[in-house]
Amino acid sequence: MKKLPDIKKSFSEWYQEVIYQAELADQSPVRGSIVIRPYGYAIWEHIRDILDKKIKATGHQNASFPLLIPESFLKREAEHVEGFAPELAVVTHAGGKELEEPLVVRPTSETIIHYMFARWISSWRDLPLKINQWANVVRWEMRPRPFLRTTEFFWQEGHTAHETYQEAYDEAHMMLKEYVDLCHTYLAIPVIAGTKSEQEKFPGADKTLTFEGIMQDGKALQMGTSHLLSQNFARSFTMTFQDRNGNVAHPHLTSWGATTRLVGAVVMVHGDDKGLVLPPRIAPIQLVIIPIFKASESKDTVLQAARTIETMLVHAGVRVHLDLDDNKTPGAKFYHWELKGVPMRLEIGPRDVAQGVAMIADRLGLSKEAVATDAIVAHVLNKLETIQQAMFNRAQERMKSLMHTGHKLSEFGPQLHEHNGAYRTGWCQDKECEQLLKQYQASTRCLLDEKTVEQCFNCNKPSVTDVIVAKSY
Amino acid sequence: MKKLPDIKKSFSEWYQEVIYQAELADQSPVRGSIVIRPYGYAIWEHIRDILDKKIKATGHQNASFPLLIPESFLKREAEHVEGFAPELAVVTHAGGKELEEPLVVRPTSETIIHYMFARWISSWRDLPLKINQWANVVRWEMRPRPFLRTTEFFWQEGHTAHETYQEAYDEAHMMLKEYVDLCHTYLAIPVIAGTKSEQEKFPGADKTLTFEGIMQDGKALQMGTSHLLSQNFARSFTMTFQDRNGNVAHPHLTSWGATTRLVGAVVMVHGDDKGLVLPPRIAPIQLVIIPIFKASESKDTVLQAARTIETMLVHAGVRVHLDLDDNKTPGAKFYHWELKGVPMRLEIGPRDVAQGVAMIADRLGLSKEAVATDAIVAHVLNKLETIQQAMFNRAQERMKSLMHTGHKLSEFGPQLHEHNGAYRTGWCQDKECEQLLKQYQASTRCLLDEKTVEQCFNCNKPSVTDVIVAKSY
Repeated sequence: MKKLPDIKKSFSEWYQEVIYQAELADQSPVRGSIVIRPYGYAIWEHIRDILDKKIKATGHQNASFPLLIPESFLKREAEHVEGFAPELAVVTHAGGKELEEPLVVRPTSETIIHYMFARWISSWRDLPLKINQWANVVRWEMRPRPFLRTTEFFWQEGHTAHETYQEAYDEAHMMLKEYVDLCHTYLAIPVIAGTKSEQEKFPGADKTLTFEGIMQDGKALQMGTSHLLSQNFARSFTMTFQDRNGNVAHPHLTSWGATTRLVGAVVMVHGDDKGLVLPPRIAPIQLVIIPIFKASESKDTVLQAARTIETMLVHAGVRVHLDLDDNKTPGAKFYHWELKGVPMRLEIGPRDVAQGVAMIADRLGLSKEAVATDAIVAHVLNKLETIQQAMFNRAQERMKSLMHTGHKLSEFGPQLHEHNGAYRTGWCQDKECEQLLKQYQASTRCLLDEKTVEQCFNCNKPSVTDVIVAKSY
Repeated sequence: MKKLPDIKKSFSEWYQEVIYQAELADQSPVRGSIVIRPYGYAIWEHIRDILDKKIKATGHQNASFPLLIPESFLKREAEHVEGFAPELAVVTHAGGKELEEPLVVRPTSETIIHYMFARWISSWRDLPLKINQWANVVRWEMRPRPFLRTTEFFWQEGHTAHETYQEAYDEAHMMLKEYVDLCHTYLAIPVIAGTKSEQEKFPGADKTLTFEGIMQDGKALQMGTSHLLSQNFARSFTMTFQDRNGNVAHPHLTSWGATTRLVGAVVMVHGDDKGLVLPPRIAPIQLVIIPIFKASESKDTVLQAARTIETMLVHAGVRVHLDLDDNKTPGAKFYHWELKGVPMRLEIGPRDVAQGVAMIADRLGLSKEAVATDAIVAHVLNKLETIQQAMFNRAQERMKSLMHTGHKLSEFGPQLHEHNGAYRTGWCQDKECEQLLKQYQASTRCLLDEKTVEQCFNCNKPSVTDVIVAKSY
């Protein structure tokens, strides 16, 4: 296996290579699509399960809607179809015949779900309607990157309908908060939450909320979004209800989603020159046990001790792997599991067994110490929490060092272009000023609620609120 | 809401109607596809989680492969493409252009997965390779029926590669056993396990194992299959490995799957004139609490007692729903939750609160009794197990009454055609004799290992093994 590219000098090459070498994913023969391998899929399963619990705990129910959507559905909402048309994959033939109306492979499911909502909603008693779908979606991608941009990806898409604007507003913000907690508490990734500009929002939405991470190379990554949809969607699908006063009204809608891109974010925020570094809460393997013996007579003793420790940790709920591969040296195993980002490593040899201890080290390099056998469980449980927290702190420090305050684009633009990093600045919220960011390959990532910079980064008009400006994935 | 059709006289109409009325699924505007509503999806989630645990416990890992597969891949295995060609949905345009090579929406994933296996396998050390995928697949369907036959459906597809034929054989049989346990222990559905005939097997397989249920109308339902694939698949994708002796060999492959059809089986095996009857282990709601009060002064007392019982049961791990809908009478609620097949019902009124009891009834009608508040948890936990077992027993009795022994097709064929039911008979295993079943709209469902009937159901040749013959879904 070849050496990983230098993470500082060649971040993009490092990213691709670590994903293949750590067996998170593999290239596929289908343009723009990847194969998610078991190790990568297990990370996604953990993220999915955590998020699914949050979605259910906040009163949503899972359901499933068709993959293939009549082309005419997308055309009902003008901005929506304009936004998605260039990315559609279209089924024109099926069952051996040409279809009368082509079907698109869903790029997102607003249209089909709103069609069904219109059938299910007739009175205020049917509201709120809060549905979530775990699904694959397809958006044709010319420049794919594993997990970050692929033609097919996995996500959850929440879709809700409410009696009032305020309830929809609260819903969209509540889900944003759940996503931020997912990132902070489980992925150990600090994010900036705010609002997308008019140019950057979801096609057809009134308002798009976003949470953005800053990767190690200083580029921003949109990690997910929560939309307050315009009533146009409800109108396009003639979705109405009788309100509490007996009047006919359109419900207020939201949609919100997060994708397999989160796996890419974990790689880009935490990785290092040795490979992945996985936060314990989503690591498929939290601790790997490596038995070490030279003489074959010590093999049985060591393996027995290793198995005992494995059993203790499994019972305590730790995700453990005992590496019994007899075709690899301990050194090769260390290298392998470091590449895969396993948070903790336990080594045990004949001398350790004799002394009733095991050597425990961690992927962050916080400590390496001998721990008495009967103290191992408590030590590991405690250490996993320490690592989780340390990873968040480290990521937060890094993000701070990548964030700057900027006043005039003419000054910080060239810096941004050359060194990446995110700039917090003022903006008058005119489209013309926003356009100028393109010359530095940057864009507005999110509008904040606060105002700390008085003037727009370009013109002399007063700023409305601060905005985060950066290059992005 | 209209009355359900008579389950005995109009089974097929009853099936469609109960699915819509109990809100398991809804028709969709996309031909052949359904929308799975939250209540139906929750049943599928329980089945999926149980099966996923079994799949992981038997050493398989989840992964994910592309939805869209190059058309040429399917053509590599001759029998395979012949079997699936008429059912394919084909993407011809994407990203605003006509594609150079059309992509098919996967009808199953053998081809793409074997392509990847060929990249991952080089030595016997890479074997066995045991992968599972939870996915949606598309097979164009002209006569759809919710859950039983839909253009898009959900399933898991397991794909494994082994060093020897024996290992692949054992794998295919092990998974058949896991499926049978899923049906017996969780779905409370007795099934007949055996082998498909040459005509009925999976396109390209050496041998297809199957498990079949007998529905209340006497028709058989193939509930899932486990295939021992021919080495043709390995050859088509030049999948080779260096064996323990240093020789180049083709791995032996299996694939196996079960689908959302299992939800349809649960409906058809257990339902009655009042609606669904759900086995407790997969019921989204295991017990519904219905508070009963007339005077508003007793409302608070009753609701408080109901909430206390709800909390106790939730803590004991019971899936409870407290029905607080103030727009429905208790009678309407009884009707509603019976239709939805909730296994247990708890009623509590002012007099019950005063006496420190609650009335507990069950969907099967086994008992209705007053239970003291402090005995409720134990009573419910115990009763849920009793119901689960009683449902399996009842289904087994029904299946027995629908199964007959047949000797000559000329005698039992007309019976089969008129009254449905399954016939166990002898068969010489000649295709010509099997063809004759068509005149009674029947087919061979599965070959058994035993032989209890001496002669073929048609000719005078000796039978090879017994075979189950029935009409089927």
